[in-house]
This record gives sequence, C-alpha cells and structure tokens, in this order.
Amino acid sequence: MTRTRFHQGLEELKHKLLAMGGMAEEAVDTAIESFRRRDLKLCHAVFEGEKAINAIEREIDELALDLLAMQQPMAVDLRFITAVMKINADLERVGDQAVNIAERVVNIIQLPNVELPVDVPRMAATVAGMVRRALESFLEEKAELAEAVLKMDDIVDRMDDEFYAVLVNKMHKEPEVTDLALDVLLISRNLERVADHATNIAEDVIFWVKGADIRHNADHADHAVSE
Amino acid sequence: MTRTRFHQGLEELKHKLLAMGGMAEEAVDTAIESFRRRDLKLCHAVFEGEKAINAIEREIDELALDLLAMQQPMAVDLRFITAVMKINADLERVGDQAVNIAERVVNIIQLPNVELPVDVPRMAATVAGMVRRALESFLEEKAELAEAVLKMDDIVDRMDDEFYAVLVNKMHKEPEVTDLALDVLLISRNLERVADHATNIAEDVIFWVKGADIRHNADHADHAVSE
Repeated sequence: MTRTRFHQGLEELKHKLLAMGGMAEEAVDTAIESFRRRDLKLCHAVFEGEKAINAIEREIDELALDLLAMQQPMAVDLRFITAVMKINADLERVGDQAVNIAERVVNIIQLPNVELPVDVPRMAATVAGMVRRALESFLEEKAELAEAVLKMDDIVDRMDDEFYAVLVNKMHKEPEVTDLALDVLLISRNLERVADHATNIAEDVIFWVKGADIRHNADHADHAVSE
Repeated sequence: MTRTRFHQGLEELKHKLLAMGGMAEEAVDTAIESFRRRDLKLCHAVFEGEKAINAIEREIDELALDLLAMQQPMAVDLRFITAVMKINADLERVGDQAVNIAERVVNIIQLPNVELPVDVPRMAATVAGMVRRALESFLEEKAELAEAVLKMDDIVDRMDDEFYAVLVNKMHKEPEVTDLALDVLLISRNLERVADHATNIAEDVIFWVKGADIRHNADHADHAVSE
C-alpha cells in the first residue's frame, strides 16, 4: 500500500462523493419537477433513483473504510475521510427527502389542481443551491462558503414559516383545499430538511477545516484534498 | 500509545455514546411530557438540553478521531469507531427533533385545549423503544435486535399514517381545530423522524456487524466492543 495509492484512493473518494452529491441534487430536482408538472412518471424516476443513491452510499463507505485501514493515515486525512463518511450519510438522506416529496406528489396528482400562493420551486432552488455550496465548501476546503450555507438556512427557515402561515390561512378560508395545502406544507418541510442536511454538511466542513487548522500547519491541511 | 490505552479509549467511547443516547432519549421524553402537560418550563428544559447534547457530540467525534489516529487500528476497530461517529450524528438529530417538538408545544400552549383522538405519548413510547433497542443492538453487537428495530419502523410509519388520516379528517369536520391538529400532525412527523434515526442506527449496526463477519473471524469481531 503505497502513499501514492492512498492518495489515488482519496481522489477516488472525492469523485464518488461528488457523483453522489449530483445524484442527490438531481433526485430533489426531479421530485420538484414532478410536482410542477403533476407527472407520475417523474415520481417513479425518483423512486428508482433512490436505489442507485443507496448503492453509491455503500461504495463510498467501503472505500472510506479501506482507506482508513490501508496505512496509518495522518490526522488530517482521518478528518477528511471521516468527514466524507458523514457527508455521505447526509446526501443519502437528501435522496430520502426527494422520495418523500415524490410520495406527496403521487397524492397531489389525485387531487383537483388548485393554484396555491406559495412558490415551491423557488424554495427548492434555494435549497439545491445550499447542497451544491456545501459540497463545494468541502471540496475546496472553504469555511467561508460553509458559513454562507448556514446563512442560507435561515432564509429557507423563513420561507418555510411563511409557507406555513399562508397555507394554514388557506385551509381556514377554503377548507376544500386542506388536503392539497397539507401536502404542499409537508413538501415545504421536506425541503427544509434537505436544507438541514446541507447545514449539517457545512458544519462538518467548518469542524473539519478548523480542526485541520488547529492541529496542523497549512501545508498539512492542504495535502488531504489536493492532487 | 499502547494497545491497552487504545482499548480503554474504545470503552470510553462506548460509554460516552451510551450517555449521549440517554440524553437524546430524555430530550424526546421531556418534549412529549411538555406536550402532555402543556408545560412551557419543560419546553425550555429541552432547549437547554440541546446544548449539552451538541457538546457531547463533539466530544465523541474528537475521541473517535483521536483513537483512529492513535495507532493502526484493525479493520474491525475502524468499523466500530466509524459506526460510533455515524450513530453519534443520528443521536444528535434525535435531540434536534426533540427541540422541534418542544417548539410546536410552545405554539400549542397558546391554543385552546382540545382533546384530539390520537395517542401521541403511545407513538412516542414506541419510538423511544426503537432508539433504545438500536443502541442496545450496537453495544451488544446483535444484528437480530437491529432487525427488530427495522420492523418497529413499519409500525411507527403506520401510526403516522393513521394520525395523518385522523387529523386531516378532524380539520375537515372542525376547521376551528386546524391549527392544533396541524401542530400535532407535525409532532407525529417529528417522532417519525426520530424513528428514522433509530432505523439509520440499526442499519449501521447491521452493516457493521455483517461487515465484521465477512472480513474477520468471530474472535476479531468480539474484541472491538468487549472489555
């Protein structure tokens, strides 16, 4: 087990995590698209996609464990690898949320099509941006980017609160749309959970980057994720 | 760094995780008690408790990283330590759910006290049992116990579905209780999320125990968590 092979392994781990991030993001996008178009086929695409996400999650975990076992990793590598394992778990749950959203959409499609005054795709776009930035902050080791994700979480929480108020108001005024309003409210909650996972990732990045800073000099901190 | 010190570290890690599990469970119990008694003080106890949970989460992560760095751990120890880190993250989120429940209760206390036909404490008891068993399955390395947790998750999902149907029905028939019914519905969702975390822990245990089985003989698998 050479040091070179170890570093190739770290690169592979990074690429797999990036692929996983792309799959999780796409799952959320597809789920929201299924909502926008009331399209059952897209719901099923999300259900199918979950299997691939679960498979890559296990691959990443196995590779991470292999790397940890391969040789005595430096503390900075340990932090990197264990951060990957945590981020991996969060991304898998982002995929779960996409499934939850698609399940609600299956419900919604059976209800009369009423326009509700909440912009779900806009909230979804903000949330997707959080996931993307959280991953970027990790891959580029940028704690500032991770901090930005934490701020975006406040925006999403406010959107979620606003949606809640609007939808409950709607239920009071037009009880006949209660079922739809409730489904949309729960989709909003699912998106807020995705935002929470992005936040968890960002927090792990801050912990990881700062931990590396405290325990090692900049040189050491660099090599864990550079080529 | 002797092997003995390493094993003492593993024991300490196990004890801390157990303490963390107790704190997370207590947070959920207290949140449900705040609901049952409509007691604002108990809500605040949950908010306070979250800080301690976050603190022990970091301690466990740091100790796990120290152990990984201490010496070349065997693959079985790696799996144990990384499983602890994952379970740790799930327990922290159980604590977050307790906070979410207590936040809803703060809302509920301001609403008229109407009895709703759903047994939240019973659902909470089932969920708490899942968390406890998931931890036990880990500490005792019992995949069967972990499988039992997965089965309990189906029961909780059914309860959640039932609560949903009952509460939506209530909203239709008595629109004046919509706000309360919605808060209770969201508490039910929070409990279901706690059950999901217990399920995640159980899945990690199965992965860990089976992984150990595949890669090592029973002797090896034993020493990771035995005295």
